[in-house]
Amino acid sequence: MTDQQPTAAVLLIGDEILSGRTKDKNLGFIADYLAAIGIDLKEARVVSDQEEEIANAVNALRHRYTYLFTTGGIGPTHDDITTDAVARAFGLPVHHDPQAVEILLAYFREMGREPNEARMRMARVPQGASLIDNPVSKAPGFQIGNVFVMAGVPKIMNAMMEDVAKRLTRGVLMQSRQVEFRGGEGDAAKPLGEIQKAFPTVVIGSYPFQAPDGFATNLVLRSRDADALEQAYAAVRRMAQDMTEQGKARGWA
Amino acid sequence: MTDQQPTAAVLLIGDEILSGRTKDKNLGFIADYLAAIGIDLKEARVVSDQEEEIANAVNALRHRYTYLFTTGGIGPTHDDITTDAVARAFGLPVHHDPQAVEILLAYFREMGREPNEARMRMARVPQGASLIDNPVSKAPGFQIGNVFVMAGVPKIMNAMMEDVAKRLTRGVLMQSRQVEFRGGEGDAAKPLGEIQKAFPTVVIGSYPFQAPDGFATNLVLRSRDADALEQAYAAVRRMAQDMTEQGKARGWA
Repeated sequence: MTDQQPTAAVLLIGDEILSGRTKDKNLGFIADYLAAIGIDLKEARVVSDQEEEIANAVNALRHRYTYLFTTGGIGPTHDDITTDAVARAFGLPVHHDPQAVEILLAYFREMGREPNEARMRMARVPQGASLIDNPVSKAPGFQIGNVFVMAGVPKIMNAMMEDVAKRLTRGVLMQSRQVEFRGGEGDAAKPLGEIQKAFPTVVIGSYPFQAPDGFATNLVLRSRDADALEQAYAAVRRMAQDMTEQGKARGWA
Repeated sequence: MTDQQPTAAVLLIGDEILSGRTKDKNLGFIADYLAAIGIDLKEARVVSDQEEEIANAVNALRHRYTYLFTTGGIGPTHDDITTDAVARAFGLPVHHDPQAVEILLAYFREMGREPNEARMRMARVPQGASLIDNPVSKAPGFQIGNVFVMAGVPKIMNAMMEDVAKRLTRGVLMQSRQVEFRGGEGDAAKPLGEIQKAFPTVVIGSYPFQAPDGFATNLVLRSRDADALEQAYAAVRRMAQDMTEQGKARGWA
């Protein structure tokens, strides 16, 4: 049932994330977006603004998953090297895409901006790429093969995902149920492990977190098999109820 | 000057980040922490709760960087498999560390918790590992070789970094300067590229962002060479001033 589901990876590109200067918000957005259309995000990486690093990561990820989404490094300045790195990964030359040139020239004319060499770099894509629409600031992203290259600015990236989504094969939605358990992860562990064994098509995760009144645990069940999910959910709720009645759910650990 | 600086990678472990359920905060914390002690964070990865995925990522990263920091997957439940995965990466057996057993037994006694098998799993570490102190909830992390294995709950991970930091070789601090530029990244691109070429020991990044009154750009200069940094900073400020006087800094792109 979970075979043949489309899978994905995300590659965040930029020194600013690794230096701590920018706190990434793109991974969470893409993760939510893909979950909502039934695509399994399997891996993410963050690499610095170095062409070889980017190209190696692109090749490691694009061969392994149905789709690869990248963010960052497609602007007009010297540190924007994603286009060249992706072209290198594919062994393709880079050219000024005629449609992108047209879009940018019209935009710069309208905005009273000089279409200088740096700005027109934003029309460069690997040969054979198709453009990704940017309704926010016009400079397009691009798709080459199964790789979608998007801007790093969250507002622009989020808008680009609308155009990208049309090109993706949707999977069967992963459904989820959640039981908040007031602590005692160590008490829940054994019965929870037994429930997990009884329902192999349901993935059960146990996530401790800090609630206002102390540590608590979210027990999260995820599956594409609705019947198994409901049965496992009932079993987890019974288990949590039993623990509470035994007075074991008294805080974290 | 930047040779021999300690480098690092981060490995975030957990389905909950890839499913979008949890928005990661650990990468940003570790990035800031390392920047403050002069260690260059070079790469980060997020992998799912699968032993082979974790082990492969650990081996890819630990051989390549001075340090590897992992977060997540060291609790008492069936989905906590980081210890086994790291042991597998090193080809080491896992045992119950006597000191960890003692810490946990004392803690569970104090808290009135049953020291059941699941809870005592949190004393398991690869043979030869040293413990990482957990002042929040006692269950320790561990260090094996150049790999530091920490909890995924931010409050616990942040506290563990205090113990970890004592074991790290600090580097020369990266210093930074920043110029906020009211737009015109495309106008700044050419002179900025020339300044970058003139100061190869300074890394200049250009980061567009959305300001309340439209898009703007942060020009960030980073270097371990204080003289070069100040000279490049002066050059960037002059450039930004010139752009403004030419009336070119009128918005983004």
